[in-house]
Amino acid sequence: MLVAEYAGNEQFRVAERSASAPGPGQVQIEVAFVGICGTDLHIRHGNMDARVSIPSPIGHEMSGTVAALGEDVTDLEIGEQVTVMPLRWCGQCAACLSGNQHVCQNLVFVGIDSAGAMQQLWTVDRSIVVRIPNELPLDIAALTEPLAVAVHDVNRARIVAGEKVLVAGGGPIGLLIGLVAHSRGADVRISEPNEFRRALAQRLGLTTLDPISSDVLAAVETWTDGAGVDAAFEVSGVAPGLQAATHALRVRGRLVVVAIHSQPVPTDLFRVFWRELELIGARVYERQDFEEAVRLLAAREVPAGELISAVEPLGRTPAAFDALESGAGVMKVLIDLRS
Amino acid sequence: MLVAEYAGNEQFRVAERSASAPGPGQVQIEVAFVGICGTDLHIRHGNMDARVSIPSPIGHEMSGTVAALGEDVTDLEIGEQVTVMPLRWCGQCAACLSGNQHVCQNLVFVGIDSAGAMQQLWTVDRSIVVRIPNELPLDIAALTEPLAVAVHDVNRARIVAGEKVLVAGGGPIGLLIGLVAHSRGADVRISEPNEFRRALAQRLGLTTLDPISSDVLAAVETWTDGAGVDAAFEVSGVAPGLQAATHALRVRGRLVVVAIHSQPVPTDLFRVFWRELELIGARVYERQDFEEAVRLLAAREVPAGELISAVEPLGRTPAAFDALESGAGVMKVLIDLRS
Repeated sequence: MLVAEYAGNEQFRVAERSASAPGPGQVQIEVAFVGICGTDLHIRHGNMDARVSIPSPIGHEMSGTVAALGEDVTDLEIGEQVTVMPLRWCGQCAACLSGNQHVCQNLVFVGIDSAGAMQQLWTVDRSIVVRIPNELPLDIAALTEPLAVAVHDVNRARIVAGEKVLVAGGGPIGLLIGLVAHSRGADVRISEPNEFRRALAQRLGLTTLDPISSDVLAAVETWTDGAGVDAAFEVSGVAPGLQAATHALRVRGRLVVVAIHSQPVPTDLFRVFWRELELIGARVYERQDFEEAVRLLAAREVPAGELISAVEPLGRTPAAFDALESGAGVMKVLIDLRS
Repeated sequence: MLVAEYAGNEQFRVAERSASAPGPGQVQIEVAFVGICGTDLHIRHGNMDARVSIPSPIGHEMSGTVAALGEDVTDLEIGEQVTVMPLRWCGQCAACLSGNQHVCQNLVFVGIDSAGAMQQLWTVDRSIVVRIPNELPLDIAALTEPLAVAVHDVNRARIVAGEKVLVAGGGPIGLLIGLVAHSRGADVRISEPNEFRRALAQRLGLTTLDPISSDVLAAVETWTDGAGVDAAFEVSGVAPGLQAATHALRVRGRLVVVAIHSQPVPTDLFRVFWRELELIGARVYERQDFEEAVRLLAAREVPAGELISAVEPLGRTPAAFDALESGAGVMKVLIDLRS
């Protein structure tokens, strides 16, 4: 079979490797599509070399069909459509014992800490395989994982219908958060400097703000009659996004910290104190978020498939990374492992 | 009557002024004790001159007895013991309309934004007067307001019995938070560099850590078997306190931001994300927190009176401020308005 391996030094290579047969409790998946995530870009740049084996296939947003089953796996059929929830927890640590396995203190993120989905035949534990309905196209199904992130973020924010919500950052996760919040009846504004991303958000039915050419806080002031928004999401990863999200909130508003800030960021704790804000960390997803993402896609309640800008064959994996990093006119890129 | 006025330029002066008679809906209080708060020190240094009239008596932690009643005030008796909850809200803004009057967007903090308690006869609206039981000594009753802050902070943290709690900062509010959390059955550690403050905390039955000579995070790691504390309070006002509080928390731990950080502070949002922490702003108190503080004092459930280091006569108000700022061997200083 062919795999796309991260080979260190910003390089990917497509290579022939032998597939592993599924052992007891395992499933071999014929991978259909793999989405490239921002984390994969960090891996490419060597920022996660401490966690990633080199060489190794990466990729954790995927869809496929069951190709083979370990001898004791009896609850799946060959050919069934599936995806993978790429988390393996220890079950022993304080986080696991408190019911928060998704943020296990010894979490293995499959596709980072262990081999990922960029292989034509991928063997994983049955426990992380999630069934998807047959009527859901496999390209759209590859968006289950990022959509589960968005579902988790919206759940952490405790969004209810009628609330006003600001999303700082209109990349794939920001847009998916906006779509999930909108599907729950929230009134959403996406703040995003990139014109292509704003145009796509608008096509998806979301209202946008341009933080470069306009004053986002003044717009929020008008929109909310001076009260501030009920909830905000920091998905920009930059200090001005955090600043806007913090200052847009109403008294007791909730700010969900989604973006990864690798260095400490100056944070207006006076505002947190003064308005009794809540800053809420949100990381990956719980099992029910993942299943809700499958349901939202299958029921067409969230048009996540519209985020797919391009589908590239496996051989063009390096070029797909380049296109994504150029940032121009690209939202989500999928690799088609069958071509 | 005599008053102690803030006169600008770091000066206080004791002066003779005429008392105002209580108008309709008002109460004149014969003030007994006024506590000096950290905010009063900020006022002295001119940091709050934009809010404070000059000259003006300040002070918002107090106790006294009813001296005279406005003609329509019929639910208080002359001579009854009272304190004041020094908040006046507009009732019209989004915060008030959402039930959060205590953080009203037009809040008047009595003793800062309007004249305070450092006057022998103080006339205030009946609506902010709170009855205190006759068996509660008036010096201890003057601690109702800071204790209400601590009750509010502990409520915001949603502390339940058996939880492990770290308080970063062992000044008056830090100790009161520790005492309230302890009274709810929490296991509390106070991290405080000042030896006098640590010794006082220990006399109050609280366990302490010295963040200068010992590794607080290592101590937390041992104490919590590697899990982290359930909740932490940032009462230090300095970046290392915030850092320790953030890093001491377990997965989904709650950090209440109590201290006033006048400038944005570098905050480890990666840790907030990674452990799905909550940072919760807490400001002043709600009416039920204030009444709970009165109850805790009256029932002797919290030995707040032990925090009183000195009681000074009105004429020594400037010296009392000096003693408090020297920081050596002083926790809470009261001014006795009757002497």
